[in-house]
Amino acid sequence: MPLPDPVLYPPFNIIRLSHVEFVVTDLAASRAFYADTLGLLVTHETDERITLRAMEERGHHCIVLQQGGEASANVLGFKVFAEEELDKAKAYFDGKGLPTSWVERPFQGRTLLTADIHGIPLEFYFAMDRLAPVHQQYALYKGVKALRIDHFNMFSVDVDQAVAFYNEIGFRTTEYTEDEDTKRLWAAWMHRKGGVHDIAFTNGRGPRLHHTAFWVANPLNIIDLLDVMSTTGYLDNIERGPGRHGISNAFFLYVRDPDGHRIEIYCSDYQTVDPDLEPIKWDLKDPQRQTLWGAPAPRSWFEEGSVFTGQAVSEPTLEAQPIIAP
Amino acid sequence: MPLPDPVLYPPFNIIRLSHVEFVVTDLAASRAFYADTLGLLVTHETDERITLRAMEERGHHCIVLQQGGEASANVLGFKVFAEEELDKAKAYFDGKGLPTSWVERPFQGRTLLTADIHGIPLEFYFAMDRLAPVHQQYALYKGVKALRIDHFNMFSVDVDQAVAFYNEIGFRTTEYTEDEDTKRLWAAWMHRKGGVHDIAFTNGRGPRLHHTAFWVANPLNIIDLLDVMSTTGYLDNIERGPGRHGISNAFFLYVRDPDGHRIEIYCSDYQTVDPDLEPIKWDLKDPQRQTLWGAPAPRSWFEEGSVFTGQAVSEPTLEAQPIIAP
Amino acid sequence: MPLPDPVLYPPFNIIRLSHVEFVVTDLAASRAFYADTLGLLVTHETDERITLRAMEERGHHCIVLQQGGEASANVLGFKVFAEEELDKAKAYFDGKGLPTSWVERPFQGRTLLTADIHGIPLEFYFAMDRLAPVHQQYALYKGVKALRIDHFNMFSVDVDQAVAFYNEIGFRTTEYTEDEDTKRLWAAWMHRKGGVHDIAFTNGRGPRLHHTAFWVANPLNIIDLLDVMSTTGYLDNIERGPGRHGISNAFFLYVRDPDGHRIEIYCSDYQTVDPDLEPIKWDLKDPQRQTLWGAPAPRSWFEEGSVFTGQAVSEPTLEAQPIIAP
Amino acid sequence: MPLPDPVLYPPFNIIRLSHVEFVVTDLAASRAFYADTLGLLVTHETDERITLRAMEERGHHCIVLQQGGEASANVLGFKVFAEEELDKAKAYFDGKGLPTSWVERPFQGRTLLTADIHGIPLEFYFAMDRLAPVHQQYALYKGVKALRIDHFNMFSVDVDQAVAFYNEIGFRTTEYTEDEDTKRLWAAWMHRKGGVHDIAFTNGRGPRLHHTAFWVANPLNIIDLLDVMSTTGYLDNIERGPGRHGISNAFFLYVRDPDGHRIEIYCSDYQTVDPDLEPIKWDLKDPQRQTLWGAPAPRSWFEEGSVFTGQAVSEPTLEAQPIIAP
Repeated sequence: MPLPDPVLYPPFNIIRLSHVEFVVTDLAASRAFYADTLGLLVTHETDERITLRAMEERGHHCIVLQQGGEASANVLGFKVFAEEELDKAKAYFDGKGLPTSWVERPFQGRTLLTADIHGIPLEFYFAMDRLAPVHQQYALYKGVKALRIDHFNMFSVDVDQAVAFYNEIGFRTTEYTEDEDTKRLWAAWMHRKGGVHDIAFTNGRGPRLHHTAFWVANPLNIIDLLDVMSTTGYLDNIERGPGRHGISNAFFLYVRDPDGHRIEIYCSDYQTVDPDLEPIKWDLKDPQRQTLWGAPAPRSWFEEGSVFTGQAVSEPTLEAQPIIAP
Repeated sequence: MPLPDPVLYPPFNIIRLSHVEFVVTDLAASRAFYADTLGLLVTHETDERITLRAMEERGHHCIVLQQGGEASANVLGFKVFAEEELDKAKAYFDGKGLPTSWVERPFQGRTLLTADIHGIPLEFYFAMDRLAPVHQQYALYKGVKALRIDHFNMFSVDVDQAVAFYNEIGFRTTEYTEDEDTKRLWAAWMHRKGGVHDIAFTNGRGPRLHHTAFWVANPLNIIDLLDVMSTTGYLDNIERGPGRHGISNAFFLYVRDPDGHRIEIYCSDYQTVDPDLEPIKWDLKDPQRQTLWGAPAPRSWFEEGSVFTGQAVSEPTLEAQPIIAP
Repeated sequence: MPLPDPVLYPPFNIIRLSHVEFVVTDLAASRAFYADTLGLLVTHETDERITLRAMEERGHHCIVLQQGGEASANVLGFKVFAEEELDKAKAYFDGKGLPTSWVERPFQGRTLLTADIHGIPLEFYFAMDRLAPVHQQYALYKGVKALRIDHFNMFSVDVDQAVAFYNEIGFRTTEYTEDEDTKRLWAAWMHRKGGVHDIAFTNGRGPRLHHTAFWVANPLNIIDLLDVMSTTGYLDNIERGPGRHGISNAFFLYVRDPDGHRIEIYCSDYQTVDPDLEPIKWDLKDPQRQTLWGAPAPRSWFEEGSVFTGQAVSEPTLEAQPIIAP
Repeated sequence: MPLPDPVLYPPFNIIRLSHVEFVVTDLAASRAFYADTLGLLVTHETDERITLRAMEERGHHCIVLQQGGEASANVLGFKVFAEEELDKAKAYFDGKGLPTSWVERPFQGRTLLTADIHGIPLEFYFAMDRLAPVHQQYALYKGVKALRIDHFNMFSVDVDQAVAFYNEIGFRTTEYTEDEDTKRLWAAWMHRKGGVHDIAFTNGRGPRLHHTAFWVANPLNIIDLLDVMSTTGYLDNIERGPGRHGISNAFFLYVRDPDGHRIEIYCSDYQTVDPDLEPIKWDLKDPQRQTLWGAPAPRSWFEEGSVFTGQAVSEPTLEAQPIIAP
């Protein structure tokens, strides 16, 4: 199955990924992790809900933490180009027979809630509250000094289907892994905002959220976080890294929040704004696509992920490969 | 004069700045500077002309060096979204009464040559030759390890006019300096590709090219370049830096090529893809806009620039300010 | 005048520079600077006196801040190899006719107070209180993350005399600047602990303390400090840098404390433990000895320094050179 | 068995570790590894033998590569304080009944060959040829930009005996691992030159050389090496890292040369010149002593090492522990 042609003029204009809402089981523990350890800035909080932003962001939030009884991911949020794009989006999803509704979300203006073909809850907005810039208030920087949310990575039961769906709404594939035997997609990285990805999909039990990534300036920020986490009681929350992915060329670290939601800290991908940028193809049998330098990932990294609230998880249509693990 | 509203739907779709063509008086000396010292990759060369690209670029060239008798900048190049945008561009410039012609440029497909209202030569193309990615061939990295061309900065005789013109073709202002007395623009930074700028204008004798900038991964790359240039005969080519600009937040270094063309090496600006991103206003009297840490710039940095080939230079309409210099 | 031969077996064994005691005129302001901004750790404090250490130090203090009416430097402290070295030191200084006395210093054991030939107050001890290591308590790191005190730099009225004096007590010259005309020393860098220097002397009105330096892991720590100081009200306290010295190869930044005491933040010198290490000679006319990359130092850097408490300042015996300034 | 008291006044004065001589089976392949990939500078070469130095070293060599039929380590070299120390050393080793001889070594002056109590071949010299400094010839820096040789790490059949032996000749223990059950030493780090170690010993089949380490300026140098090695055919030579050891606090990478000799690239240990520096004790059951961040080491790292030429290898007297491995 060849990679579908990218759609030049999508039915509505998505600018970028924007935010994720997590259900967490101990809000104070999550605040300690995201605000005190990672260093994200709290922009609003109640006894039940905390919103945070990263250092260069002017939108009100990139992470929403909602106290709940069981950990899950409620929804993935995206920003569109203008108010009218929301109406175009509604028409589009309605036309596909996918559920749509206008929902109230504090601080983010008119918001369309919908879902993709595999049931991943998505929400779109244009007018999130804008906050004053703080990126030059250097006394506020701490932890890993995350600059902005970068991407979501999902387990998908059918990556070919996922790529076709997101391709049609304007996401372009930058890199992908193909199963040489079946010629089916194993994994794909797709962008709107001009980096390697806003979203990515990997074959696996899904739909589940594998990780949410934040962009930092350089590898030393990541080393600083490792030093702090390993000496302040978060040693077991360090899951994988530091290392470099072959795919995306990212220097990475994966950590787990107190509920197991996986966060990637990430730097050094590349600019992808050219509409004729050729996707880079990787062979599923090439271990360097996963890890350029050769260190294995732990089994948990291949197997665990956050469920989407209320969404059943299914087996993938493409049979799982042996994990390249220790 | 208030900042004009950004145009949401421009008459043609420019993706990003792409390349500059310099006339140089000693091609071998320029090759030694750009290829051997900065570390850009030569993609084609003849006795008269050399093209180069940066490490993550897949387009054929970002710098063209043309042997000539007198140093100048021939043209600034931009990539558009699709072939048909070139025709829309021609119609637009024709409608403005600005000169247009289709020109032959090796390796870059159909190319429209035109000029802006102040006479800066511009060229637009869609289909530059694409080269294989080399960003993971790490043995090729040397010098400052420049990843991509980032922006052009120009002296303008009337920044208000320049901003109005480029705003109409889709460039959005991210930061600007206003003269508090006259309420006129002193300088402005404008983008298409989602960073702080593709182009910028500063009040001064113009039109002239102040500098062409390259993006690097982190400040240590810049320190490496300083160490090499200062110990290999290029000490006098180091003009300003390292330092951090208030405007754009960039960590910067300015160097001069053997003909005096100014190159900025640059990292750590921020993402600007939000269409509702509020421009940041700086006061002309705030010295930290220029240099966050307080070190003065040399006089040459305020006064010197590359002329555009065949373009006369005029005095600005807004009277020059005293230079904040040593 | 040739550089004197190093003394292989000195009369007593000094291990390293250890600490400086500053008189400061506003102890709270100094605490904000040294502890909150630079990030040194407070190890003891009263209303009149604060002691601090750097992150990898286990000795009780490297800086002592003493409230007083007029800013000055009280004394430079050095650690010796064993208790009996203190008695040898007393005999040595007594033999030279220099003042000696045993003084009480909190937390630092038996302490010999004396002075060098130009009146710089020196104190020697062996048994400073030892504190538990904190270098792996990464949550404590902040500010510039200084790891240890590195050296003192003094203005000297006669560098030849100073070098001869300190050479005799075991300090070895690693680099020096000679006045080609008079063949006299203009400046010299001398070590005990195996780096480029514990102490240095530059020709000038003296005796005065030019600066006290702290060692950090890499240049990004220094860039972080610049960002914080320039955006938290300390812009005017940034005096010079970042840059690289030719002499010592150090990447440096000079800042001034609230009383004007000068602090250097410094990394990347080299190991000097070989007893046959050849001193590197620099010509006073070579501007790269001062600044490898060519940026000028401000006039204050050449002229200002901390007086030693109660010590008159004299003109140097070698006529001052024109400052290589902006 | 308590840690022995350090000897304050050793029988002869060793300054630092100096060099290692490896037998390699393909000199051209080894040259490609050490000179072209790691970036060490070749200081002399014949068809049979190559000597190299690191960037800040002025001694003639820190690595000697000798063509041979079977890979091994010939000898570990140390520099003493003065010529007469060699004679004291000879008397000392003769007195212990250990073999001594004066040997010819090109470029390193009078050299005493001997061995420690477990048969590790040692050589001592004072007057190695001195070369001109190149640390400011920045155009010569490449590869991992190693600044100097830092330490040797050995497998020892009896670490208590090894520590007692080297302690008596002036090496001081900075950190050590104790087996809580037997109260015997599992591993120890010992220095002469003022860093965490010149030599270290770990319980295991010995005597064997576990690794030879080089010091670099910062972690980004190590990341650069990983990128280059993983994309130039040296992927399988990357054995472990990047990571941080709990012991020594080092940021590390372990690579293997074409014959399997293990090289550590290393930064960020701490200064240890204080004679009263308290050794840091680690529990053998604490996995963070090995790896602060928790990533496991591969089995090869625990088991493999270079034999010393002509030395039989024995089982350790302290029973091996289960490896803390993937």
